[in-house]
Order: sequence, then structure tokens, then C-alpha cells
Amino acid sequence: MAHSFKIFLFFTLSIIPFSYQIQHPLDSLTPNEFIEVQAIFNQSYATSNHNITFQYVGLEEPNKQAVISWLENYFTTPPPRQAFVIARINHKTHEIIIDLWRKRIISDRIYNGYGYPLLTFEEQNAAKQLLFKYAPFLASISKRGLKIEEVVCASFTVGWYGEKKKDGRIVKVMCYYLDGTVNLYMRPIEAITVTVDLEEMKIIHFQDRLMIPVPKAAGTDYRESEQSPPFGPPLKRITVVQPDGPSFSIDGNRVRWANWDFHLSFDSRVGPIISLASVYDTEKQKFRRVMYRGFLSELFVPYMDLTEEWYHRTFFDAGEYGYGLCAVRLEPLRDCPANAVFMGGFVAGQDGMPIEMPKVFCIFERNAGDVMWRHTETEIPEVLVTEVRPDVSLIVRMVSTVGNYDYINDWEFKQIGSIKVTVGLSGLLEVRGSKYTHKDQINEEVYGTLLAENTIGAHHDHFLTYYLDLDVDGDSNSFVKSKLQTTRVTDQSSPRKSYWKVVSTTAKTESDAKIKLGLEAADLLVVNPNKKTKMGNLVGYRLIPGSVAGPLLTDDDYPQIRGAFTKYNVWVTPYNKSEKWAGGLYTDQSRGDDTLATWSSRYSLIKVYFYIFHFALVGIIIMLIIGLIYRNRRIENKDIVLWYTMGIHHVPYQEDFPLMPTISTGFELRPANFFQFNPVLKVKAPNDVKWPNCSISGNA
Amino acid sequence: MAHSFKIFLFFTLSIIPFSYQIQHPLDSLTPNEFIEVQAIFNQSYATSNHNITFQYVGLEEPNKQAVISWLENYFTTPPPRQAFVIARINHKTHEIIIDLWRKRIISDRIYNGYGYPLLTFEEQNAAKQLLFKYAPFLASISKRGLKIEEVVCASFTVGWYGEKKKDGRIVKVMCYYLDGTVNLYMRPIEAITVTVDLEEMKIIHFQDRLMIPVPKAAGTDYRESEQSPPFGPPLKRITVVQPDGPSFSIDGNRVRWANWDFHLSFDSRVGPIISLASVYDTEKQKFRRVMYRGFLSELFVPYMDLTEEWYHRTFFDAGEYGYGLCAVRLEPLRDCPANAVFMGGFVAGQDGMPIEMPKVFCIFERNAGDVMWRHTETEIPEVLVTEVRPDVSLIVRMVSTVGNYDYINDWEFKQIGSIKVTVGLSGLLEVRGSKYTHKDQINEEVYGTLLAENTIGAHHDHFLTYYLDLDVDGDSNSFVKSKLQTTRVTDQSSPRKSYWKVVSTTAKTESDAKIKLGLEAADLLVVNPNKKTKMGNLVGYRLIPGSVAGPLLTDDDYPQIRGAFTKYNVWVTPYNKSEKWAGGLYTDQSRGDDTLATWSSRYSLIKVYFYIFHFALVGIIIMLIIGLIYRNRRIENKDIVLWYTMGIHHVPYQEDFPLMPTISTGFELRPANFFQFNPVLKVKAPNDVKWPNCSISGNA
Repeated sequence: MAHSFKIFLFFTLSIIPFSYQIQHPLDSLTPNEFIEVQAIFNQSYATSNHNITFQYVGLEEPNKQAVISWLENYFTTPPPRQAFVIARINHKTHEIIIDLWRKRIISDRIYNGYGYPLLTFEEQNAAKQLLFKYAPFLASISKRGLKIEEVVCASFTVGWYGEKKKDGRIVKVMCYYLDGTVNLYMRPIEAITVTVDLEEMKIIHFQDRLMIPVPKAAGTDYRESEQSPPFGPPLKRITVVQPDGPSFSIDGNRVRWANWDFHLSFDSRVGPIISLASVYDTEKQKFRRVMYRGFLSELFVPYMDLTEEWYHRTFFDAGEYGYGLCAVRLEPLRDCPANAVFMGGFVAGQDGMPIEMPKVFCIFERNAGDVMWRHTETEIPEVLVTEVRPDVSLIVRMVSTVGNYDYINDWEFKQIGSIKVTVGLSGLLEVRGSKYTHKDQINEEVYGTLLAENTIGAHHDHFLTYYLDLDVDGDSNSFVKSKLQTTRVTDQSSPRKSYWKVVSTTAKTESDAKIKLGLEAADLLVVNPNKKTKMGNLVGYRLIPGSVAGPLLTDDDYPQIRGAFTKYNVWVTPYNKSEKWAGGLYTDQSRGDDTLATWSSRYSLIKVYFYIFHFALVGIIIMLIIGLIYRNRRIENKDIVLWYTMGIHHVPYQEDFPLMPTISTGFELRPANFFQFNPVLKVKAPNDVKWPNCSISGNA
Repeated sequence: MAHSFKIFLFFTLSIIPFSYQIQHPLDSLTPNEFIEVQAIFNQSYATSNHNITFQYVGLEEPNKQAVISWLENYFTTPPPRQAFVIARINHKTHEIIIDLWRKRIISDRIYNGYGYPLLTFEEQNAAKQLLFKYAPFLASISKRGLKIEEVVCASFTVGWYGEKKKDGRIVKVMCYYLDGTVNLYMRPIEAITVTVDLEEMKIIHFQDRLMIPVPKAAGTDYRESEQSPPFGPPLKRITVVQPDGPSFSIDGNRVRWANWDFHLSFDSRVGPIISLASVYDTEKQKFRRVMYRGFLSELFVPYMDLTEEWYHRTFFDAGEYGYGLCAVRLEPLRDCPANAVFMGGFVAGQDGMPIEMPKVFCIFERNAGDVMWRHTETEIPEVLVTEVRPDVSLIVRMVSTVGNYDYINDWEFKQIGSIKVTVGLSGLLEVRGSKYTHKDQINEEVYGTLLAENTIGAHHDHFLTYYLDLDVDGDSNSFVKSKLQTTRVTDQSSPRKSYWKVVSTTAKTESDAKIKLGLEAADLLVVNPNKKTKMGNLVGYRLIPGSVAGPLLTDDDYPQIRGAFTKYNVWVTPYNKSEKWAGGLYTDQSRGDDTLATWSSRYSLIKVYFYIFHFALVGIIIMLIIGLIYRNRRIENKDIVLWYTMGIHHVPYQEDFPLMPTISTGFELRPANFFQFNPVLKVKAPNDVKWPNCSISGNA
């Protein structure tokens, strides 16, 4: 993108980099903007006479074309800064758009459909507090001989299991026991379920089913301070050193490194959003567009335990809890290496006021000792050629800790032009308290692995669905499936009897682009049908999946209806500003009537229709409307969005107790005939750092 | 293994660490031993009156039980040092075992079956030289207007395409053109095929089919010195620093790092061999066995081009060319980071004398900025817990450059107890010269991608088959498939309609353990059925595959008969010292009668039998004998070997021209109920290195 350099100059010359005229239209709301939003909001809805909670406040994404054209000429006015607010006002869900320049609400509509907005921390905390004043709960705790001051509770979304009438905004609260550990998740207090109405903020149901021993504290604490010998062999000090500082620059939210230029913003629902990722083409001497916007759209985590306290644990971490809301402060030298630079973010509290999230991102150059490319040539008489380029890449990291689980999210930018996404899963398992202390005692389905005495690690899945609005060298792209097809040699033309050939088909409609990975050998490409290389190949990017997993729940099971977007690993939709949330905008208690599957697939549409049918007239109406608007839309040579779902089936093992070693999965978007030739052919290795002349002090 | 510490002391106290009494029985042959082998050999076969070439000289692997018992009591005599030699003596293949202590040949048998041993560099070079004195070839070169002094040739194995009679040891020689580049592989001189008999060392067939333009040199040279601007943006200096030195120790060929202890040796056929890998169990206070021996058994690379000069390009890089023989000297600070330690190896030349291979391995601690485990606990009132352990692992690296391709081979040892194998593919594509200069001109099957003018990158596969003799906590192991099975809820016991449960089955015989990955969700485990955790779970290790690919050739195609072992990603066989080579001991011109598939599978046996049937009585006899000895053997609670094949289908893209950016694949062996709990729970983060106090000189 030619604009990039211009803006670069502009930014660097600019004295007041955050003045409106150069505020990037995709920047997250600033603290001042959050405050303004709340002020403007209060003009219409004074808290004095309204019951108000801010469930979501974020940037109202500006019109894509307006952003692009502003970037092409940054002296024109950028698209207006607007905020998108989802608030509960007097127990109704309002979608409000606020214009921050004109300082007024420009749209305010009430949502009456299925599902509810993100939960706030404040209401979840309030819900938990109720238990400590609730006699039956206190009785249950003392009945178990537990100390109430050692009890910690957590709130769980309730999902949807075919109920016809709406339950209102409720959560189930379940509790854990500390008493000698900080690892509360390894000490569940089973069988007590408290249901709280978040609107009334009162307990509407209490159940204490039976007595199950609370797993013991011994061996559960993971703090270094609490460990006792024998310890493992220690490692000597090791660090990364960049004597001349990092090779990247950060101007506001724009990051430039090597041949990459992108915009990084933070959102309370999704966490990191990568926008306007462009790669510099050394040969063409310009930046070329790769991805307009990429983020984690939804994270579906269904557990496989059918017991009363567990069956509903089928979480949508982004849509229910807020993947960004759950982001944690990164630990320097631990979460990120010594050469990392940290960035903060802001979210709105329940009252709409900004809350700072320090060190929510780290950005660093990864120097893992990998080889970017190499060759040793020994065939040439009297000449030995050895050329090697070590690999250095750029990582943008955020860790989201959704209750027990820690998700380490990396966006990696490689000099070869690849964007790689890796997610590492660590943290604490959700375990169920059990009477069992040895596997031999178990003669029933316990839905998990006995990890320790009275401790069963429940089977579960993680499905991470990414929204990838690729704009390969421009907006108009197509999705191409290059199938590797076994072909028999029928004539006597060759001593061979077979080979494989590439049969490429361009997806005309959404249904052509739905793919379950692992069934056939194929390269999956997003190409620009209007741009060719000198050789005549369409410029493109290729999706290289990592480990592949698909859902194992039946299509008609309620969690799977809500998570129907996981049925295919790959979907392609025409760009539509309103289609961002694979699980729907209102995921809490959603009924699957607003998912990627319903937008994208007539089949799913009818399926969901069918299940909704039994339950609500409004369901039918909604489905019909959606059905009329969307029906297997055309996606050829259009502005398209690639949706990719990666999954992990998690059978816990004892190594996951009391805390899980990281397990990772990911995918890569790699240039495929995007460049005329190897884009790193001319990349020189960084100069060497003389070694071991480095004298370093430490805290050894 | 309790011995480990004993030996550690012994080694460290030992003044003469390489004296026989403590020479490790699995050490590669020393230079002196190579010399001895040759001397002993010459007593029986004096070169004066014999035509002799050494095709392979390596360690005759000692009896496994003898090694184990020696390790359990290192004061006893170790198993005898023996060498295994495959030599051509007067045009016959001899398998000779030489006892290095008794200094004599103890076994000498002539092999008359199908297939021939590894090619030597010397004979391949001699074959190439023939062309430069061969008039018809010189004529063809000048006919093309090429300068003979710029021509470089390479030798290609011929495979087997159903010929009934044996062809003898032949190679096809094809040539390339330099003249302004070192990237000979981008300048094939097509259509000229010269067939050389290696025994007679003479040209037995010459063909010049047609005139095809040689792709031009411009843009093909990859040397930094030859690049011209515009260059990409440079990166600042970056390095890894270990102020206290590395955390690993190397005694002879034994490597100890963190909780790992293993033996590393070098072999001309396979490259690195990892032996006796044991992991220290902090809780049990002892080393526990994980893998007796692991190495790359075969690397099958079939090309998909049926043209006269290409159809036979279906290489078995380990068995035909020698994966270790093709190992290259690693470039410090490029192939391996600043903290790497290098090791050399030795191979035998064609005359049997040792040839040093310096810097053939590097060993270094990988500090990629990853997180080994973490959790942030925010649920506890007034307490914020953040515990993070950065990940540091140990890498053993070798690069094998088999002609055009560079394979970067990493064995990674992780503190969590995992062994991870990663192979990166870089180097140069095999391209075919072509008349085409633009895709639009192409109306026929060209078997590849037009990468540059007159340059077609041929479609091909890489299948890497690993021999993994796991001994999980002892010799007797079983292979368990834990299938994740969708289960419907038929009663009203739960609002859920489905879940998945784990259905584990133990493979009784080889045929139970053959698995094509990607078809169903399952955890694959090697367990010790005689060892349980306190909780009653079988101790085990789990195979975590990376990207999955299987063969696309038809079963009856000749290359696929030879490469039938790739048909399943996973095979399990009972340990048998003689079964090491998935493609057979004699892979050059093999006919698939001695592959993993034939040993392991009755089905494949009959299939191969069927194809052999047409061709040779000896085939039938061999198959019958094999058939009688092996038939779907029992593998439950036995010393078993896990064979894992990972594959890459390679459709070239322009980014692969003129040199390929690395693309990687791999797999992980991860503890699964092997430990009582998270083995890195107590691992402390290495002490911090104060930063940026580091003052470093450089060559910037």
C-alpha cells in the first residue's frame, strides 16, 4: 500500500500523534473516548432514573471502503469515530451507536432476539457474593465441614438446552475450596448449584444434590514459593540480546517490522485485532495488502460430562466472557522474552468508565534458532557454496485467562510473507470432585481421567474460530481449492501407473467453500483473480492448517446447534460488516439462529430452523428473514472473508495435574504465487554479535 | 535408569574416556575402528586380486539385551564391538560382520536378492566424469550451443518399473548448466539421458530426445554476494546469550541436559541416531527409559512427472544416497545459534578409509520465547497469583543435503518429557526445463508449476518414516488406540443429546496397529502394561502427529510397491534387530519384497507377492519364506517398535524459486500418564539476565 510510507513520514513528523486528524480510524477507543461515550450516553439515559449496565463498549468499525480510501489519501478526513455500545437499560438489551465527533447517539435499537450480551465482571462478582449471605448455601458448606472463608466461587453460563421460553439473564454459581492452596480449580465443591438472576441480582434456585469429597490441597499449589524438594535439575541463565535495540517500530497502534506493516488494536470481546496487514514487495518497491482484519471470532469449549453440575459447561469464551476482558497482565522475562516491548489496552467497566489493562500485549522478535532458508552446493568442482539465512520473526502476544484456562495467543509475522497464528493452552483443568481414589474402583462412565485422588479431569474440546478478512493484493478475491488427484496412466506412455495432478476449482458460492479438513489432499488458496504474476499465475495466499479436529457432538445436540460453525474447518463468506461473530453477537444462551452456519449455509439454516421450530414462533420468523436475506451467497471475485476453525480434543493425562504444560496448535497463511520469486532471497542475515565477549550482570 | 548417575561419575572421573572398557557399545565406529575394519577386511580380500568397493561401513548394532544389562552394570564387559560392512566384491554384494576385538571376520554372506546397497560418492563421481569424454554427449552439448566447462552432472537412481531381469547397478546421469550461476538445479539440460553401469563403470546407453531451452541464469543465484539492490529492510543484530555457558554436558556421545540423558551417534545411512533416551523423574528420583533407539529409517520422494527423463525420479534418499553421507558442515551463527556446540562424525570412503565429517551435528538450547506453563489467578479476593515458566528445550540438529534438497533435522528434548521431531525442507527444487514462458501457453499436463521462464517446478511428495523403538519404562510395551467416540444420550438422564467418550483398544497384532491418520479422532499411545501410576493409569507416551499426508500413488504402481510402508502413517512391529529399514536394506532398485509393509502385513505381502509373481521365481520363494516367518505378529506386551511416517505434498509456488523458504513438519512423543503429575511443576525459571546492561561488540 503506497500510503504506508506517506503515513510513516506523517507519523514521525507529527508532534501530536494522537490528534484527531491523524487518529487511525481503526484505533481502539481511547480512555477519553470511553469517558465521552459514557457522558453522551448519560444525556439520554441518566443513571438516576434508569437501571443501566454497559455490557460492551468498543469501536464501531468504520465502513471498510471509507478506511481504505482514507489510507490512500490520508489528507482527506478519516471516517467518523463512532462507538458501539451494548447496554442493558431497564432490563432490555440496547444496541447503541454513538458518533464521537458529533457527540450524539445516532442509533439506538432494542434487541429482542435470543441470546444475551457479554457478561460483565461486576455482575459476575455480585452474583458470587450473594452466596455468602445465603443461608442454605452456608448450611451446605458447614455440612461439609468446610470453612466459608476458604470458599471461592465462579459463575458459569447456562447455555441453551431446548427450553422454549427465555430464562432471562442467569448464571450458575459453583464454588471451590482454597484452604492450603491457591489452586481452587483442583478443589471443586461438587453438587451445589446456585442459579442467580443477573437482572434482579438474586438467587432464584438452589440445589445441593449429594456429598462428594473435596479433593485435597496437597500437591495442587503451583507457586514456586510453595514447592518443596526434590527439585528438577536447574538450567543456567539464557536470554536474547539485541545490542542495537529492536528492529520494529510502533507508532500509536501501527507496527512496522522488516517487510511488514500492520495495525494492532485491542477489543474487550476478541482481544487482539490485526488490521491492514501489508507486506513490502522488494521487487515492486511497494507494500501490498494481505489482510484487512483478522481476529479470534469465537472459542467454543464443550465439556463431555453429562452430570447435573456439568452438562451445561459448553462455553463460548469470546461471546460469553470476553476474550479481551479476560486478558491478563503479561509478566516480563516470563510471558515474553527480554527483548519484548509491552502495550496496554482499555476496556469499559459496567459503568462505562475506562479500565486500564496494562501490558496486555507484548511484541518481540523471535530468534528460535530456526533456518529461514539454506543450501549447500557440493556438485560444482572446486567450489563449495554454503548460504544460510537464520529465521527471525515478529510475535504479537496476548494471554487470555478465561477462569481456569490460559490461552497464549501469538500472531507471528514472518519475513517470507507468512502470517502464522499459534495458540498455546495452559493453566488449570476443570476437574470434577469424585469419590474415586483409584482407577480400579471405577465401573461407570466418569467422563474423564482420574488424575489424582478424588479428582477427575473432564474430557473436553477447544474450537478456535478465526475471522480472516484477507484482501490479497486488493478487495476482490476468490477461494480456490487445488485438489491433488490420483490419476491412473491408462496408455503405455510411461512405465509409471499413476501420479497425482492438481485440479483447481474456484468456489462460486459459500457451499462450495465449506471444507472438513483431513478428508482429501488439497491446497487451499485465497487468490486475487484480477492479478497475475509475470508467469501468469494468480497471486494468492495459502492456508496451511496445523493439527486438524472437528466436532464430535451430534448435529442435533443443543451445544452443537449453537456451535454449528465448527462443523467445517473452513468457510468462506462475502464480506459483510455485520458478520463478525461465528457464534452470533449475543452468544450467552444463544440458540444457533445467528451463527456462521446460519448465514452461510442453507443446509444448516434448515436444520436450525427445524429445531427452533418446536420452540418459538419468533424463531421461525427470524430464520425466515435470515433465510430470505442470505442463501448460499456468491463468493467468486468478491470481497471475501475466510473463517478457519482449529480444534483440540483434550483427554487429560496426569501430567496435566495440577497445572497443564502448554500444548499448542495453529495455522499459517503463506504466500502462494503472491511474489514473483522467493521474497527473502535478498534478505541478509543480521550482523553477528561477537560471542562470548558479552559481559552480563544478573541476579544469579 | 539408575546406571546413568554411576556412569556419569565414571565418565567424569575417567582420565581416558575413550578406552575400550568404557567405550559405549552404541558409539559410532571411531576412525581407528574404520582403519581396523579395512585392515581386517584386506586380510581376506586383498585389493590386489579383488575388485572391492565399500558401500557401507558402520556399527553392527549389538544385541539389545546385552547393551541394557551392560548399562545396568557397567563393570561387566560391554557387548563386543563389531562392524557391519556391505561391500561389493568382484561384482557381488557381501554382508560382512567384523569383530573388532577378536580382529576377524565372523560372518560373510553374499546377497543375491533384489536391490543394491547405498551408492558411494566416488562411484557417482566417476560415472559423471564418463560423460565428459563421451563424444555423443559432447556433441549434444555443443549442438545446444552450451560450453562443456559450464556443465555439471548429477546421478539419479533408476528405481524399478516391473523389469523381470535385474539390470545390474546402474544410474542415469543428467546434467545442468552453470554459466553465470551456482544454482545448477534451476538450469537443467533436458532430454539428454546417459545410463552408466557402475560395476563396469561405462556408459551403456545414451539418449538425446529433443531440444528444450535451458532456463536462463538471471535471477537464479542465491549467494548474498550476487544479489543486487533493491534489498529488503535489514534487521538489527540479535543473538542468544548464556553468560554461564550451556546447561548441557557431552561425555563422548552421551548428552545430558535438564531431565534428559541420551546417546547420540552418527551413521552414514541415517544420520543422527538417538539411543537410550531416558528422562529423570524428580519424584521417583531416577531416570526412566523412554526410547531405546530412534532414527529416520527412510525418506521417500516420488516426483509426479511422467516424462522420459522424470518418471523414474522416485527417490529413497536414505537407502539409495545415504542421509548421513549427505550431511553437510553446519555454518555457525547461521545453521545454529550462537550458543550451539558442534560435533563431528566419520564415514567410510569407497576404499573403507575414514572420512571426517566436521560439524555434522549442532546441539543448543532453544529459547524461542515460548511459555512452558502459566496461570494467572484472579478469582481469589485480595490475591493475584501469576506464575509463568518460560520454555527452554534442547535441540540436536543435522542438515542433510541430498543433491538439491536441504533437510534440516531437529530432535528436540523438552523439559515436560516430550521428544519432538521437526524436519525443515529448504534448498532447491527439482525443476524441468520447458519451452513455456507463460502459463497461458500451456494446454497440456506439465506436472508442475511454471515458476519462471522455461522453468517448471515438478509436483512431488516427501515421506519421512521414523523408526522409534520406544521402551516406555521398560522393554515390554503395548500400543493403545484411544478412540474418541460420539455417543448418543438415549435416556432422559441429561438435557444433552450427545458427548464423546474414550474407547481404548490395545492392538493385539500388527494389523490392529496400522493407522491412516485423519480418519477418526483418537489418541495413540505406547504404554507399559506392567506399570501403573498411583492412580492406576498405565504409564505411557503419546504420539502427537503434525500435519498429515498419505501417498496418492496407486497401490500397484511400482514406486508405491517399493514405498508401500508409507500407506499407513503408523505401524507397530515387534522388535527385530534385522528390521530397521522401512524400504529394505537394499533400496536401490528394490522391488518391495523387504519393506515394513511386507514384514508387517499379510495383505501387503500377498499384494507384493502378486506383483513379484510375474517376474521372478526367486521373488516367489523369498516372499513365501518371509510369509512363513512373519505373518501379522503379536505385539501386545512385547518389545515393540513404532513406525511413524509424516508426509508433505509439495505443489511448488513461485516463492520456491530460485530457492525454497523452509517449510516444516514434525511430530511429538509426549508423556501420557507417564508421570504422577506435571513433571515441570517444580522447575524454576532460569535466573534472569539483567538487561539491557549487556555490552556486546559486533561486526556491525
